Amino acid sequence: MEAFSFYNPTKILFGKKQIAGLGIQMHRDGIKHCILIAGGGSIRNNGAYQQVIESLDQAGIQHIEAWGVQANPRLDKTRQIIQQAKESGTEAVLAVGGGSVIDTAKAVAAGVYLKDIWNAFIRKETIKEALPLYTVLTISATGSEMNGNAVITNMETRQKWGISSTHIYPRLSIIDPSLQSTLTFRQTANGAMDAIAHILEFYFANEEALTTLAINEALLRTIVDMTDRLQKDAYDYTARANLALSATLALNGLSGMGLAGGDWGCHGIEHACSALHPEIAHGEGLGVIVPTWIEYLGEKYPSRFLRWAKAMWHEDSISSAICRFRDKLQSWGLASSLRDLGIKEGELNTLLDLIMQNPSLGGVFKLNKEEVRLLLMLAF
Amino acid sequence: MEAFSFYNPTKILFGKKQIAGLGIQMHRDGIKHCILIAGGGSIRNNGAYQQVIESLDQAGIQHIEAWGVQANPRLDKTRQIIQQAKESGTEAVLAVGGGSVIDTAKAVAAGVYLKDIWNAFIRKETIKEALPLYTVLTISATGSEMNGNAVITNMETRQKWGISSTHIYPRLSIIDPSLQSTLTFRQTANGAMDAIAHILEFYFANEEALTTLAINEALLRTIVDMTDRLQKDAYDYTARANLALSATLALNGLSGMGLAGGDWGCHGIEHACSALHPEIAHGEGLGVIVPTWIEYLGEKYPSRFLRWAKAMWHEDSISSAICRFRDKLQSWGLASSLRDLGIKEGELNTLLDLIMQNPSLGGVFKLNKEEVRLLLMLAF
Repeated sequence: MEAFSFYNPTKILFGKKQIAGLGIQMHRDGIKHCILIAGGGSIRNNGAYQQVIESLDQAGIQHIEAWGVQANPRLDKTRQIIQQAKESGTEAVLAVGGGSVIDTAKAVAAGVYLKDIWNAFIRKETIKEALPLYTVLTISATGSEMNGNAVITNMETRQKWGISSTHIYPRLSIIDPSLQSTLTFRQTANGAMDAIAHILEFYFANEEALTTLAINEALLRTIVDMTDRLQKDAYDYTARANLALSATLALNGLSGMGLAGGDWGCHGIEHACSALHPEIAHGEGLGVIVPTWIEYLGEKYPSRFLRWAKAMWHEDSISSAICRFRDKLQSWGLASSLRDLGIKEGELNTLLDLIMQNPSLGGVFKLNKEEVRLLLMLAF
Repeated sequence: MEAFSFYNPTKILFGKKQIAGLGIQMHRDGIKHCILIAGGGSIRNNGAYQQVIESLDQAGIQHIEAWGVQANPRLDKTRQIIQQAKESGTEAVLAVGGGSVIDTAKAVAAGVYLKDIWNAFIRKETIKEALPLYTVLTISATGSEMNGNAVITNMETRQKWGISSTHIYPRLSIIDPSLQSTLTFRQTANGAMDAIAHILEFYFANEEALTTLAINEALLRTIVDMTDRLQKDAYDYTARANLALSATLALNGLSGMGLAGGDWGCHGIEHACSALHPEIAHGEGLGVIVPTWIEYLGEKYPSRFLRWAKAMWHEDSISSAICRFRDKLQSWGLASSLRDLGIKEGELNTLLDLIMQNPSLGGVFKLNKEEVRLLLMLAF
């Protein structure tokens, strides 16, 4: 098993009505003013916004608001909120929303201390401090509520890149799964696929991390089963809660213990897809890329992929397991090809160039340009 | 699923030769002097002590040493080390050893700020601060390397009681599984049984925490499989590493997510056994109590216990699963009755009185005195 380090200081409050604890914790941390960052307004419909405001008010914490973060969150919006945070002299950042809102909030928390936040993404500036960050999660998918990563898209350069720092772990994240009952099944399934992809980016990296592989199989099976249940009943709280918990654990460090940092080839490819077409949901994009990636690499490294075929799908061959995986994603209504996602054949070269801007595609299974081209053809 | 909170700020360095990172981290934290706490001297034989001293020296960190912590660590020794720590004006506590050494170190870290450390155990004083704590683990069992709990025995009152505080989480714990190759198989198996018991204290508490139950099954299976491998080959690093990681995860908060804080009835009973007979290894004591506890409660709450029978032992009845469990522990050479542990029939009443001093035996499955008496008879 590979050596590894693990550190995750984020506190989690999990369950119904846990938002009530938000103001209490911020007050305990000495926060008197924060900037609340949100998306398009769904948090007014699912009840999160009202509960947050009530909790802040009761604790005597003042706030300003920054709305309008979109899916595949953008650099220009992030810069604008950083400016707002700086001008207000706020003491903390509060994200109320999904992964896009939380990632933006992380970039804001770090960005108030940098010349320009994009410098951190292109490794020109280092994150040395950040405002304390609090989050209230409203869709389980990215795992951003319990890690130190953020991904932002620079629309000028079409780069969807990431930062990673111990300074941007949320201090506290509140996960009330009941807030997610009003999501469409498509949103739920995209989130589930994102979590599945996070686990699979790690899963094939090392055959000897038996504890972590067994945990990852437990998470993968739970995610699939709970998503099936939610397709039948969006208000199934047990399914909602277990999907939420699994998605958080899929990318909080646990799923990668002893797995060499993971591969992240699928994310590299998908990020280029949704940088080119920001209307592509990250999870749905991964639903096309991940099975194709397994198909491509399964032939080269059969033993690593066979364990997955057996443990997840009770299949003795990788190809049968991939069929079962694709059938499952299709039964959830996800796209099954790049074409389905709205990518045109004439864009494949641009896509390939965007993907290969990333100098090290695949931390475990290195892919060169010709291999990625083949993979894109398979996925098209 | 029950609401829960999770917080675990301990940093883990896991793998061969990771002790080299100890001095670096302590130096980064501004530590110039620490008190090194250890047991009877096994750390001189497994190489841990030499590596620790080298790492401290390279980082320019001075230290004093306190040796002689025993299994089932004692209050008088703890008080003595607290005195030594106070007199030296040290800035940090460094535990090098197993759970007993780490638990003692936690009590020392908190104790320097209290009138008397036992007051924290009997809830007369509250732990409000503690010296920063670092640990180097040499036997995987208690999980103390990644939690905020400590158990100490007061030999005068025969009370083996615990404290729990966010202030006594280790800042950094180093787990180098290769240090454990020199353990006897008996020590390894006792450690494995301790970890199994930690998971089972949570496992039966709630049937809807499906994510956690699946993770716990992954951990239980891995612990059993790795222990079997180590019985054949003590130097099987993959088995050693995966047993170590599973034991840490068995009691770092993960295994209890959504499980109502766990039951802890088995620990309550075993603590009384080893308070009465300090020569009883905690893990071996649990190996007698846990199967009997499942036998007793399995009849009352069949559905909760059936999941365990099927998932862990592929058995359709609880009684067959208990047989398989007991056979496994016996194949590892563990005791199978209180009598085997050296407890005399005439001591059962004293034992019962000690157990019932604990006002709330069983957080989930409450047991009254008559029930505990029956359970002891079954276990005898």
